[in-house]
Amino acid sequence: MLKNIVLVENAGFCFGVKRAIDIAFDIAQKHKQGVFTLGPIIHNPQVVEKLKELGVYPIDNINEKNIKTLIIRAHGIPKEKFEELKKLGIEIIDATCPFVKKAQRLAEKLASEGYQVLIIGDKEHPEVKGIFSYAGEKAAVISSDEIPVLNKKIGIIQQTTQPLSKVKEIMNNIINSLNEFEEIRIFNTLCNFTHKRLQATEKVAREVDVMIVVGGKNSANTTQLANLCKKIGVMTYHIEDAQEIDKDWVKSAKKIGVTAGASTPQWIIDEVIDKIKKFTN
Amino acid sequence: MLKNIVLVENAGFCFGVKRAIDIAFDIAQKHKQGVFTLGPIIHNPQVVEKLKELGVYPIDNINEKNIKTLIIRAHGIPKEKFEELKKLGIEIIDATCPFVKKAQRLAEKLASEGYQVLIIGDKEHPEVKGIFSYAGEKAAVISSDEIPVLNKKIGIIQQTTQPLSKVKEIMNNIINSLNEFEEIRIFNTLCNFTHKRLQATEKVAREVDVMIVVGGKNSANTTQLANLCKKIGVMTYHIEDAQEIDKDWVKSAKKIGVTAGASTPQWIIDEVIDKIKKFTN
Repeated sequence: MLKNIVLVENAGFCFGVKRAIDIAFDIAQKHKQGVFTLGPIIHNPQVVEKLKELGVYPIDNINEKNIKTLIIRAHGIPKEKFEELKKLGIEIIDATCPFVKKAQRLAEKLASEGYQVLIIGDKEHPEVKGIFSYAGEKAAVISSDEIPVLNKKIGIIQQTTQPLSKVKEIMNNIINSLNEFEEIRIFNTLCNFTHKRLQATEKVAREVDVMIVVGGKNSANTTQLANLCKKIGVMTYHIEDAQEIDKDWVKSAKKIGVTAGASTPQWIIDEVIDKIKKFTN
Repeated sequence: MLKNIVLVENAGFCFGVKRAIDIAFDIAQKHKQGVFTLGPIIHNPQVVEKLKELGVYPIDNINEKNIKTLIIRAHGIPKEKFEELKKLGIEIIDATCPFVKKAQRLAEKLASEGYQVLIIGDKEHPEVKGIFSYAGEKAAVISSDEIPVLNKKIGIIQQTTQPLSKVKEIMNNIINSLNEFEEIRIFNTLCNFTHKRLQATEKVAREVDVMIVVGGKNSANTTQLANLCKKIGVMTYHIEDAQEIDKDWVKSAKKIGVTAGASTPQWIIDEVIDKIKKFTN
């Protein structure tokens, strides 16, 4: 790599995504038909296309196809959905990220022990919908300091990809209402890999003139990386693949940083770097 | 009361102190001799003197007297001491404040469940020494943001009379290290009564020219009230009884506030107010 292009450490696939994709490719080789993933396996169209070529199709509705094997993606699914699937008599391959599984288990444990469960995260995110289904009837998803306090005992978990800075901010606000509670129990369910990628991205973003952030436009963690770079003040471009890069973005830059979300495969990162090299040579 | 003297609501005896003193006076009437308290029943020399008149003496060393009945004061005592006393075959009256008992129980529970217990408080205070003895071998008393982290699971409790503001400050610092932990479990063991007295004192201190804070010079919670008033910027005098008041302090003040610590009896507060009236009329 040329001196003026810096690839962020831990850019690209995280442990849970890599594991889910490996499972999907593995199953695709074993069974030649009837293999589906419930929703796209990851938020990356290229990976989804590659799996389609091997006969693994994403579906939204379990009634519409002749399903033999169904793969649950890294985000996980709600408890009720899981129960429903189990009744269908099909093979279910659970590729839920182990860190997400842990958050689901802790949500269930806290609810069963009488805590009001608060999930710090984005309530529209599939991972959070899954965790929420385990968190009991008083559960709430919070993304700011507005906390609907129902119990004197609260249990707090986080969407695995939330930025630590946001979690701290919300937690500090909760602690400031300490006298309203008998007990506050916090489990750290943040994915350490995500945290390290954010930290490494921040470090690079502070050193370069331009940041290229690679990943699905609908990927929350990629958007988070792009927002972090913009906040730092560096010129930032969020792209899905190398085709989107404009020569004008990089030609006069002295130093260019590249980072990528958890659902971005290495081959796309490589193509992006090759394209930047081409434009800057 | 004259318009220019404001007595803080909740000034004086708290629930736990009142209960311990009631127990001591009650025992004094039942048994005419051999009744002792382990250490002074409260941090107030006048109350200790009144009990002496009734035949109840404070002792530090359980070997030195012919003890029939021993009263444990509101602060509580360490677990080992309690075990030792039980072996003596004397009557033990446990007047430990129920809020302190709760903190001791929670410390023991957390330690038995594998948490490193952190106690926010003053490590030299008898209450804290008592709670600490229940908190397991990895326990630490913390009074700043220097946290000796040994476990990934920490359990946090507080000395019952700590100011909420200080607890929040330390807790916010702990939360800022959230990624170092798997779990942070906080029990609120603050005495609500103490908190209300601090709040009421702050309110009055902001409205007056002079604050008179009444209570033992060695009473932590009285000193805390005095420090709060000084921090607000009002002229503050910490006294143990009415004899100490100087006419110059109050004669030209338009409005005078009076507050008192948890170990200050009502009769002393009354004397203080009478003296101020005398000086200001």
